[in-house]
Amino acid sequence: MVRIPIAVLLSGALLLFSFNTMIKPTRVVFFGDSITEAGARPGGYIVQLRDSLAAHNRAADYELAGAGIGGNKVYDLYLRMEDDVLAQQPDVVVIWVGVNDVWHKRSYGTGTDADKFQRFYTALIKKMQAQGIRLVLCTPACIGEKTDCTNMLDGELNQYSNIIRDLANQYNCGLCDFRNAFMEYNNLHNPKNQDKGILTTDGVHLNEAGNAFVASHLLNKI
Amino acid sequence: MVRIPIAVLLSGALLLFSFNTMIKPTRVVFFGDSITEAGARPGGYIVQLRDSLAAHNRAADYELAGAGIGGNKVYDLYLRMEDDVLAQQPDVVVIWVGVNDVWHKRSYGTGTDADKFQRFYTALIKKMQAQGIRLVLCTPACIGEKTDCTNMLDGELNQYSNIIRDLANQYNCGLCDFRNAFMEYNNLHNPKNQDKGILTTDGVHLNEAGNAFVASHLLNKI
Amino acid sequence: MVRIPIAVLLSGALLLFSFNTMIKPTRVVFFGDSITEAGARPGGYIVQLRDSLAAHNRAADYELAGAGIGGNKVYDLYLRMEDDVLAQQPDVVVIWVGVNDVWHKRSYGTGTDADKFQRFYTALIKKMQAQGIRLVLCTPACIGEKTDCTNMLDGELNQYSNIIRDLANQYNCGLCDFRNAFMEYNNLHNPKNQDKGILTTDGVHLNEAGNAFVASHLLNKI
Amino acid sequence: MVRIPIAVLLSGALLLFSFNTMIKPTRVVFFGDSITEAGARPGGYIVQLRDSLAAHNRAADYELAGAGIGGNKVYDLYLRMEDDVLAQQPDVVVIWVGVNDVWHKRSYGTGTDADKFQRFYTALIKKMQAQGIRLVLCTPACIGEKTDCTNMLDGELNQYSNIIRDLANQYNCGLCDFRNAFMEYNNLHNPKNQDKGILTTDGVHLNEAGNAFVASHLLNKI
Repeated sequence: MVRIPIAVLLSGALLLFSFNTMIKPTRVVFFGDSITEAGARPGGYIVQLRDSLAAHNRAADYELAGAGIGGNKVYDLYLRMEDDVLAQQPDVVVIWVGVNDVWHKRSYGTGTDADKFQRFYTALIKKMQAQGIRLVLCTPACIGEKTDCTNMLDGELNQYSNIIRDLANQYNCGLCDFRNAFMEYNNLHNPKNQDKGILTTDGVHLNEAGNAFVASHLLNKI
Repeated sequence: MVRIPIAVLLSGALLLFSFNTMIKPTRVVFFGDSITEAGARPGGYIVQLRDSLAAHNRAADYELAGAGIGGNKVYDLYLRMEDDVLAQQPDVVVIWVGVNDVWHKRSYGTGTDADKFQRFYTALIKKMQAQGIRLVLCTPACIGEKTDCTNMLDGELNQYSNIIRDLANQYNCGLCDFRNAFMEYNNLHNPKNQDKGILTTDGVHLNEAGNAFVASHLLNKI
Repeated sequence: MVRIPIAVLLSGALLLFSFNTMIKPTRVVFFGDSITEAGARPGGYIVQLRDSLAAHNRAADYELAGAGIGGNKVYDLYLRMEDDVLAQQPDVVVIWVGVNDVWHKRSYGTGTDADKFQRFYTALIKKMQAQGIRLVLCTPACIGEKTDCTNMLDGELNQYSNIIRDLANQYNCGLCDFRNAFMEYNNLHNPKNQDKGILTTDGVHLNEAGNAFVASHLLNKI
Repeated sequence: MVRIPIAVLLSGALLLFSFNTMIKPTRVVFFGDSITEAGARPGGYIVQLRDSLAAHNRAADYELAGAGIGGNKVYDLYLRMEDDVLAQQPDVVVIWVGVNDVWHKRSYGTGTDADKFQRFYTALIKKMQAQGIRLVLCTPACIGEKTDCTNMLDGELNQYSNIIRDLANQYNCGLCDFRNAFMEYNNLHNPKNQDKGILTTDGVHLNEAGNAFVASHLLNKI
């Protein structure tokens, strides 16, 4: 029988520990629009995710960075992908875009055609996957929280969400289906058919409950 | 026992017949947009309604007239109500409008605000009821026949249909809820989630089945 | 020679004076959108008009009242003409509308078709003239003050202004052509091709100079 | 004095001639939307350019190829630049785009924001110039030919034309300023203020005169 002196065991453990702390943490970039931009602010879902990881003693395993800019559509992400995402050499990118692609059709006349949305989104995926990045795609959650099928833009949100679901499937990306999750949540928790105030402050941007809801969904995906 | 001579019976029958043929038929005006305009053409639902009445030997009881003009919105109806409807002194008016009020938001930027839709519709109702006209209000059927909640304008069609339902209720008008009827029909008969071709030729205008469907629904209302 | 005692002359003068002060002042209602609404506030052009009349000792000859509501289009004026204008029994109505009819095409998809603009405007004119009201029509001034022909909505503002000019001519109304006046002013006073800040705060609503400019133009028309 | 026999001179001339005919012709790709697509059809400006070159005995010096697709906006060009232009290894590319970037704001709600137009256009320029391609940029000609400043989209056409002019200047590209050229032509030849029919069939697409006009302008630029 071979006896290993305690000193050796201890030094082995220390080595292991040092090694562990030296491991490069998983770098996650959240790439999106104003919802993501707000997510990186105090109370935002990215900050809450960091807190959750810390609570699970996983703080050192992840570096979370927000790369959201208000008003961004899919081709804005495309135009700034190099500078804002690839340059950070992330391991994981969470893409959450689509609300403005639909919304701006109405507010500015500069929304994104569905087929172009699909093409630019595909270009994002291919470029990032070519760099070995793991992707999590998110469907746009809502523009209005009503549950009686009168939100003005639900039809298109569903259409663009379908495009994202198909892409996630086709390119083996993770999928965080906020569109479905928000609709299910509202069906249960919005009995008065309110336009906003359940998970959002204004029908689009997350309130406190919304940020917590999003953080808990993303925790499993990264 | 009193015996009534045949001659008397006969003359009574003749009198009744004459009286019957002298009764003014119920005059029904169909007031609306291109769907109604097409309804008055061969194969259209107004023509089919006439045929149905004839088949039930009720042809003499009704005069049906189309007053549909392509592209009309609620305020177009308002602007031509005097000339095209009131001047005909109808007993019943079937109002079917709303598709263009929603659709033109996208195609021309000149759709109708929901609150103005409600106000002009109310003005139509009040003016016609003041003349003793019985009203049947119809909800806009569809813009796109998909059943997976991706028709671009479903949210607003539902919103404007709600306005019409409320007005029918508030002003004691008949209601022909084509919005509901079309959705139910498509849920059963559109398993491939087609955009058109079930009850419409193009997602909006009625095909043969659509005209028959609409005629059968309206038959009970007039 | 007939001598008239001074007492008689004096009492006659007093009578005349009393009579003069008893003459009903000319009641002017300013009927329009947010620009008119703001015009009735301190510093607004309606208030400035009142001050100008007072400075000319004509304060007692006119009663000026604002009837502007933000966001109004021509058919909004039509819908509230009875309550907000005719009920005040004005002698003169200054109509200033058109900016939102054009602008809302872009911002909400609910602008006014040019032909409907013409029809509702005509309905306003006919109804008011039938009540003996004298009308002053104003063309929409601007949406953006640039002078290099890149204001997004100039084409339509010019088109709708032409409709108003034609109506003023056809129905013998006064015309206050702010569209022309503003363009001429900007060509002289906006050498840096600014989008706003010359006569407006935001390209549409009047700043101090704008209110003074408008007041001076309207002074001659009423 | 050295005498060169005529035979030598002749053979030298022949050699020069052969050499000349062996020189690779300048390959020009016309990259754009439906206007360019139609330009490659019989009667189109690209075909007319070929005829003009032939008439000047320059047919062998140029290869002209159309790469226009109806409905294209600047980012459509961007998405298909590799396949449709770079793969052809052109010496010169004539870019003519912008009409749909403006027009689709109204017709589909999917026009291009001015700043994105500038960014994608810049990306086109940089990519092509990096491959040694000489560029000729064209401003969008017109959407409506009226001369009284009531074309609905003139403001934005002028704005986007300014962007193209600035880019041509900044990146040392050739510029074919059709926007200016068409306006000048219409000011002279459209005295009745027609909406179409001068250089276009429908306000946008070139008629016979328009194709000739465009061909003559491009002849000097390539």
